Amino acid sequence: MQPDLSALDAFLDDRGADGYLVFADAEDSTQRYVSGFDAPDPYLTLYDGDVHLLVSSLEYGRAKKDSDAASVSRHADYDYGAKVDEYGHEEAGDRVVVEFLDEHDVDSVVTPDDFPLAEADAYRDLGASVTAERQGVVDDIRATKTTEEVEHIRDAQEANERAMARAEELVAEARVETGTDAGSGVLVHEGEVLTSEMVTREIELELLRHGYALDETIVACGADAADPHDRGSGPLRADESIIVDIFPRSKETKYYADMTRTFVKGDPNDTVAEWYDLTQEAKEAAFDALEPGATGKEVHDAVCDVYEDAGWPTLRSDERTETGFIHSTGHGVGLDIHEGPSLSPRGEELEPGHVVTIEPGLYDPEFGGVRIEDIAVVTEDGYENFTDYPEELVVE
Amino acid sequence: MQPDLSALDAFLDDRGADGYLVFADAEDSTQRYVSGFDAPDPYLTLYDGDVHLLVSSLEYGRAKKDSDAASVSRHADYDYGAKVDEYGHEEAGDRVVVEFLDEHDVDSVVTPDDFPLAEADAYRDLGASVTAERQGVVDDIRATKTTEEVEHIRDAQEANERAMARAEELVAEARVETGTDAGSGVLVHEGEVLTSEMVTREIELELLRHGYALDETIVACGADAADPHDRGSGPLRADESIIVDIFPRSKETKYYADMTRTFVKGDPNDTVAEWYDLTQEAKEAAFDALEPGATGKEVHDAVCDVYEDAGWPTLRSDERTETGFIHSTGHGVGLDIHEGPSLSPRGEELEPGHVVTIEPGLYDPEFGGVRIEDIAVVTEDGYENFTDYPEELVVE
Repeated sequence: MQPDLSALDAFLDDRGADGYLVFADAEDSTQRYVSGFDAPDPYLTLYDGDVHLLVSSLEYGRAKKDSDAASVSRHADYDYGAKVDEYGHEEAGDRVVVEFLDEHDVDSVVTPDDFPLAEADAYRDLGASVTAERQGVVDDIRATKTTEEVEHIRDAQEANERAMARAEELVAEARVETGTDAGSGVLVHEGEVLTSEMVTREIELELLRHGYALDETIVACGADAADPHDRGSGPLRADESIIVDIFPRSKETKYYADMTRTFVKGDPNDTVAEWYDLTQEAKEAAFDALEPGATGKEVHDAVCDVYEDAGWPTLRSDERTETGFIHSTGHGVGLDIHEGPSLSPRGEELEPGHVVTIEPGLYDPEFGGVRIEDIAVVTEDGYENFTDYPEELVVE
Repeated sequence: MQPDLSALDAFLDDRGADGYLVFADAEDSTQRYVSGFDAPDPYLTLYDGDVHLLVSSLEYGRAKKDSDAASVSRHADYDYGAKVDEYGHEEAGDRVVVEFLDEHDVDSVVTPDDFPLAEADAYRDLGASVTAERQGVVDDIRATKTTEEVEHIRDAQEANERAMARAEELVAEARVETGTDAGSGVLVHEGEVLTSEMVTREIELELLRHGYALDETIVACGADAADPHDRGSGPLRADESIIVDIFPRSKETKYYADMTRTFVKGDPNDTVAEWYDLTQEAKEAAFDALEPGATGKEVHDAVCDVYEDAGWPTLRSDERTETGFIHSTGHGVGLDIHEGPSLSPRGEELEPGHVVTIEPGLYDPEFGGVRIEDIAVVTEDGYENFTDYPEELVVE
């Protein structure tokens, strides 16, 4: 895929800079997107209207073959060996980069905000003008997905739903035991106490079989579920909420999907049952607000309104609260699991092609946690929800 | 695990700096190591003899509970909301950080080389002294493993060998077919053409069952194997070298292992057979040189000597060669798959507790590739090789 970087041209014009410079490995999505290349060690990408790569000897052949870059250089093209003898490895590498910029008539570069400080200061010492931009110009470009990118995410969501079904199936098949070593009320599946770790493993195996991987999954029960970032551990229990949040990445396309469901085996307490209904209402309110021209802040406010009207705290009503709705409403999804746009107090205008999660939730260690999360693309006249998974709190 | 950061104290004294500042998520191993905390979004760690964390509201409760930090702060502790109203989100965040440093009487900080440029320049504009260090002081500390870390890596290597055995088993069980759609000489396993992707998936499933994950595996055959970074794809073929390079990470401890074997199903060509013997010899030469007090460069030179004496090019004899021995001899392994020390032209003095790979290899698209890789820890009187996997080129 050749991304449309015309907005980057306009940005560089506006800044009066000669080029955009990225130094990172391909795990960095800005690097992957701009360079169109994939390498495990850091390499340099200069965009000056065309893409120019500076890579190690090890990557040189593959970069020429696999990337669509207008030019590919390697350190040896700039007398790296002689420079090492004269200046040592570190300064030799810096001097190669500055010569590479000179060769492309680039005196001033803008970089992503997370460009490495040591390299930037070294290039400055050698005469280059290096300025980090914090607007996230490439993030903004990446936030608007092409049709091909939307398909990648839709495919990932299909795999995600198969994994969620496997997780729900395990909970459904489990029996509630009263007399195990792990205490009373724990779930038991085929004679074994059913733990977060077991459900997580089954989710991962299901995804792996279809070419998807994940670094982490959340299968969090009870008090664990009350902490939105707790991955969960130990036995799953009846009558307590179990949050399952899965965000797989395609090994091939590198695009993510994201979805959350909350389950209770047995009887939810009244608060969790109320929270579930409210969270469905909050999700609907968010989707009602989701359209091009609306801001991410407006979508987030719609969720806060529902929760606050029902008497629950949010970070909008109390920035120090540790219970209630204590995160943002959603985020963009693409090559990164968290990317633009943001559905939060900082959320800006939404555009067709933005792919976002909508994930309201309520948390309190006393009761547990509830979160429901769908993933959708903003369209010309509203949105299309990729998520086609039922919402049923109680699993029989 | 509480790491021994006394070398960092000495470094800060030497530099006349008040503290060491890290801003990254826990995927960054320096952050994970220094902070003793694990969060998916970037957070700030200040080390001034003690560890102080500045985290988002979302992470606050967990950081207090899970980390051993001397103090945990959140943005709300520094009137973040009021600052946002006055300065906007970005500058409000910067001002919170500078106040946080002031509160700890820290005027000057040193950072890792990859500290984000935009944040560093912003803190400088607000009066803080921020300097990146390129020595990699935390990398140096991390390179020397504690007994506990060595055990984590040894465990990972055991899982790795089970996965390698599964890969070799698939090749062993395969038959050589002459009349398939994929052409003649392809390997067929249980009626299906055996591909790199199938072997990779079986490796991953085997690892996942034991709590290990990997982002990537190399199962590369023929011309693919001639490129050390090619992950491999498509049918595996008889009589061609198949490089299997597996580097799993424990989901629990986050430590890696690393191993490579090269297999041929059928009859290797004469060059590959010669390369295999030479590479075993080169590996032995490297291990003969591996001891405390030796340098990584000396170990690397031992490998280059073997290959060059046999008439094959290396990057030492020709920095532009694209065939022969075209990478370094090895690297440290720990929380990162590639970390210090380096067994390369840049390799410095080795110390007990260094965990390194030894991975000589030869490559040429005309013949394929051969690589053999073990992982070992440097001990007081030499080394201990964790690898207990046979070396047999021809798989029957």
